[in-house]
Amino acid sequence: MKDFEFHNPVKIFFGKEQMVKISSLIPAGNKVMLIYGGGSIFKNGVYDKVKEALKGFSVTEFGGIEPNPYYETSMKAVKIIKEEKIDFILAAGGGSVIDATKFIAAAAVYENGDPWKILSENEAVKASLPFGTVLTLPATGTEMNKNSVISRKSTTEKFAFSSPYSYPQFSVLLPDAAGSLPRNQAANGVVDAFVHVIEQYLTYPVNAPIQDRFAEAILITLIEEGPKVYANPADYESMSNLMWSATMALNGLIMCGVPGDWSVHSIGHELTALHGIDHARTLAIVLPGLWKVLREEKSGKLLQYGQRVWNITSGSEEERINAAIEKTADFFESLGIKTRLSDYGVKQDTIDKIVRRFEERKWLALGDRGLTTPEVTRKALEFQL
Amino acid sequence: MKDFEFHNPVKIFFGKEQMVKISSLIPAGNKVMLIYGGGSIFKNGVYDKVKEALKGFSVTEFGGIEPNPYYETSMKAVKIIKEEKIDFILAAGGGSVIDATKFIAAAAVYENGDPWKILSENEAVKASLPFGTVLTLPATGTEMNKNSVISRKSTTEKFAFSSPYSYPQFSVLLPDAAGSLPRNQAANGVVDAFVHVIEQYLTYPVNAPIQDRFAEAILITLIEEGPKVYANPADYESMSNLMWSATMALNGLIMCGVPGDWSVHSIGHELTALHGIDHARTLAIVLPGLWKVLREEKSGKLLQYGQRVWNITSGSEEERINAAIEKTADFFESLGIKTRLSDYGVKQDTIDKIVRRFEERKWLALGDRGLTTPEVTRKALEFQL
Repeated sequence: MKDFEFHNPVKIFFGKEQMVKISSLIPAGNKVMLIYGGGSIFKNGVYDKVKEALKGFSVTEFGGIEPNPYYETSMKAVKIIKEEKIDFILAAGGGSVIDATKFIAAAAVYENGDPWKILSENEAVKASLPFGTVLTLPATGTEMNKNSVISRKSTTEKFAFSSPYSYPQFSVLLPDAAGSLPRNQAANGVVDAFVHVIEQYLTYPVNAPIQDRFAEAILITLIEEGPKVYANPADYESMSNLMWSATMALNGLIMCGVPGDWSVHSIGHELTALHGIDHARTLAIVLPGLWKVLREEKSGKLLQYGQRVWNITSGSEEERINAAIEKTADFFESLGIKTRLSDYGVKQDTIDKIVRRFEERKWLALGDRGLTTPEVTRKALEFQL
Repeated sequence: MKDFEFHNPVKIFFGKEQMVKISSLIPAGNKVMLIYGGGSIFKNGVYDKVKEALKGFSVTEFGGIEPNPYYETSMKAVKIIKEEKIDFILAAGGGSVIDATKFIAAAAVYENGDPWKILSENEAVKASLPFGTVLTLPATGTEMNKNSVISRKSTTEKFAFSSPYSYPQFSVLLPDAAGSLPRNQAANGVVDAFVHVIEQYLTYPVNAPIQDRFAEAILITLIEEGPKVYANPADYESMSNLMWSATMALNGLIMCGVPGDWSVHSIGHELTALHGIDHARTLAIVLPGLWKVLREEKSGKLLQYGQRVWNITSGSEEERINAAIEKTADFFESLGIKTRLSDYGVKQDTIDKIVRRFEERKWLALGDRGLTTPEVTRKALEFQL
């Protein structure tokens, strides 16, 4: 493995009876902003529990964070935070609410002009309001990392940022709240976590057996638990296993000392920005296409993945790689997640637009070993037409 | 799985070129105590590198920490720390040096009389001097946890303590320094890490598939890498994989939401206290014996372990459990670690003494589900005579 640094200070509280601990985790006397999304926390009981836990604190509410949260919405929260001199933010909901909160918390103390530069120009975040999270939807892993992805409505752009100042102080993980999710959102969570692992695992061998096996552990668990959660999101034990899998998928651990790819995400973000397709579904479209193009370059890990995760042990290397790609796409489809662009009404003109954008941004060598050139991106998406 | 909390704030720096970062991790102007053991850091080059990294700091050295570090030695360091008003401790060495440092750091600011009470009476640690570590020996995982084990020479007692104040601020992990270890110490590290995993994994099934597979990932990696490191500790890649395995074995992660046992350790500590047997070797003696006694109660996990870790898939349940126990003991023996009490000259009188101690301390139901009664301890040790 390569040299690495690892640090993850997030305090995790997992399970049924954890909400009561929130009050002791926020400094007494703090003015708190409670940020949430489209209102699911009113249906799953989390709103009432949070309000109960925040008794004694002055609380300002800010609802309406969208899936693929917008810069524009986030900046409205920033304005209120400054006006009301908010000290601490509590995010309650899924990955979008938490990602928006990370941006809001950084933007609220940003002193270098328009905070959009954090996203568009990779301006370093140098401070943040402290915040905690209450997670009701397993998927992105944002509850235990320093990353965030924000979209800009006016320009249909979508960018990520990452900062050591953007770790939640704590995250309360609630599998029971996730039990009231619609099945398609639960399925999105499974695929999102799955592809997060793949981006860190399916590159090339570097003799890092612990990291490889941890990655495979998460993948196998998602393959086992995903269908159970898709059949019945209220299956508490399976939802718990999915939620912990999704957290472990992107908390930095399986990334230690190994190369990453992340070009599936870079391409997928464009499909969300241009067509509003759910993040996880964009990943399910792009991944099989990218593997079809880079099957030679990624053969070492594709064969290992096929064998250890899908138990593919017979056939030529070519056949085993085909089977690994097919099993993966079939798994996504079995969760109701379509893997073809035509399933979403996306055509060649979108592929052209994405390739042009990458060229304009000089994104000429994305991902693992810079293999994902604009031409590879084109071919990968054309495989999925 | 069960509800759980997880928090591990230790900053990890892993690999060859990490030592230079130390100076930026200790507050400027701090008076530093450098603690080390029997002098191996002079042979493996770590001493020179640490001194180079600490240029500009006032450094007081305290060497001579023993394997199974003594309370008595630790208290000498505490006296110097108070006299010299030390602000920060840097531990350089293996698990014993780091464990001693955790106790010294807590004892230096303990205000409730004799710090021995932290160990003998489980008095809560409420503060600690800050400290960092430089790890040169993979084994105990203490570099990334809040635990410590200390012995008292005058009473031949050995106790553990654990405190959220006892996390290192940072740990620099140096597989190359470990390359100069004697083979038997490398083997000790493999077995120590192996049994740490077993204590958290081999209890009873609670539907925690991520935790189980992470545990199995570490065990399989130790089985693969252990013999390579035993053959040649200077094999950098294998030593790296062993070192990261040992850290992951006991940093709280695989313990999330699952029951623990730890009675192998409780029994093993007595063998060290009474006969000075290396910690890892005591674990290698006790574990097979305990499994022979508790084979029924632990059958679910013993069968899973046999199948997933050792690929034991044929035979009756009884035969598969026998094979799992045998493979484990054979693995220890293959690393030159003897698993019988007679190999160490220990006889029935020691067993009687340990059982009597447990009874006197009212340790009547140790471990997983309280299964390890004094009578079970007696039988387990008698199996290994």
